[in-house]
Amino acid sequence: MSMNKMSEAPIGVFDSGVGGLTVTREIMRQIPNEKIIYFGDTARVPYGSKSQEVVTRYSKQIIRFLRTQDVKAIVIACNTASAMALPEIEKEIDIPIIGVVRPGARVAASATKNGKIGVIATDATIGSDVYTEYIQQINPNVQVIGKACPLFCPLIEEGLWQDPVTDEIAMRYLSELIDIDIDTLILGCTHYPLIRSTIGRIMGDKVTLVNPAYETASSLKELLETDHLLNESETGLGSNKYRFFVSDSAKKFQNFANTIIKYGILSAKVINIEEY
Amino acid sequence: MSMNKMSEAPIGVFDSGVGGLTVTREIMRQIPNEKIIYFGDTARVPYGSKSQEVVTRYSKQIIRFLRTQDVKAIVIACNTASAMALPEIEKEIDIPIIGVVRPGARVAASATKNGKIGVIATDATIGSDVYTEYIQQINPNVQVIGKACPLFCPLIEEGLWQDPVTDEIAMRYLSELIDIDIDTLILGCTHYPLIRSTIGRIMGDKVTLVNPAYETASSLKELLETDHLLNESETGLGSNKYRFFVSDSAKKFQNFANTIIKYGILSAKVINIEEY
Repeated sequence: MSMNKMSEAPIGVFDSGVGGLTVTREIMRQIPNEKIIYFGDTARVPYGSKSQEVVTRYSKQIIRFLRTQDVKAIVIACNTASAMALPEIEKEIDIPIIGVVRPGARVAASATKNGKIGVIATDATIGSDVYTEYIQQINPNVQVIGKACPLFCPLIEEGLWQDPVTDEIAMRYLSELIDIDIDTLILGCTHYPLIRSTIGRIMGDKVTLVNPAYETASSLKELLETDHLLNESETGLGSNKYRFFVSDSAKKFQNFANTIIKYGILSAKVINIEEY
Repeated sequence: MSMNKMSEAPIGVFDSGVGGLTVTREIMRQIPNEKIIYFGDTARVPYGSKSQEVVTRYSKQIIRFLRTQDVKAIVIACNTASAMALPEIEKEIDIPIIGVVRPGARVAASATKNGKIGVIATDATIGSDVYTEYIQQINPNVQVIGKACPLFCPLIEEGLWQDPVTDEIAMRYLSELIDIDIDTLILGCTHYPLIRSTIGRIMGDKVTLVNPAYETASSLKELLETDHLLNESETGLGSNKYRFFVSDSAKKFQNFANTIIKYGILSAKVINIEEY
């Protein structure tokens, strides 16, 4: 591809399932000219309870698939895969790739005033300690307290965004972070922005909630600018602008996706990701 | 293998993860001479939200793996895989194979007095309508009411077996079955026996709870007797009697498994199931 053509190529975005759509929505908003190929690994969701080895193997399969679609850059729109697989993958890949962890860590590090940052995420992300590592690379004096919230994803996927049960579970997960007096909380799983209002109410006004989706989209924009890969030509909302692939059950994905993204996900195509 | 040797071969048991251990425990109790090879697909758990195509593909991979271990019979200790994959698999396979759905359906059909049976299970099992089909093959006049309970598995895996949150979620799921006045309730997911006391308390004394695990172990015993495959020789509790394999994260599996099975699961081996 010529450089000109290259800039018109799509961005590949992937997640273990639907959560990455909150990042995709932010990319659509901040760089509206870009085409997007989204892959949700709905056959093997969730990643948050899996090991590094398995998450890395799955992520590599997905990247092989995305590259068959001639993407110019890749966004790992999943905290678990960003935490567990990106460090290995970025050594090997020859196109721009970013995850959601580093941008989230950067914002949190600059937002905290009392030097106490909380991170809520999956078991796998918390276990990897990668938020702590990135934040302390920026400021070694910041204390980072991680809390795994394994029930949030199932509750969110069941639609209980505003529900006494979600409130109760959130109180249990968040109480120790309140006790420690954090002033900044990273929503370290792409599902969590969907219950932002519940989390915000429990944490109170004095705690800044960081949604890595916003910062990831900004970082992506910068990265594409630096590499002269930003698409300058306008792209209409045709069926080729945003394309969605899943590894299972397109219908369920579409239903959930349509609650997150307003453009209307008309079709998602099922592929067998194990073949990649 | 000679017929004699054949009867000493292990039984292969599989599930999407840890739930099938409730069935395994029943097999250990009812036919204690048998060797067991257990496979838990912990890398791809849960199956309950997946499509028939994917669950069938995964089940076939697992059966190919189990056959490399020279099993004499196979138990699908997972309601979702029994509902979605067994009908196709049993046409192709040349060793005895049973699932948990048919045995559970049989008990429920004979237990009901008012002809109203409830089934609680995963989305996939309920969507397949296979409990209704099997029960109505036995008695076409029985009414079968299915209710998907997608949050039960995550709650159970988080250890909230006795918890106000599990009570609240159970009340929501079960209230319509109470309103319809069922007198028999099938615990149609191998996790659910672990919250049997919660379910029993909400349903009340007049409702018979059917745990397919018990009946599956009995059916297996009969099947092996008929085929002269029952192991008559005593097997000690050596490391080869019960062997456990998983597709990810053996440690987490072992921790959970040890809360279900008392023999102590000393080791579970991780294999890459996608290679089968």
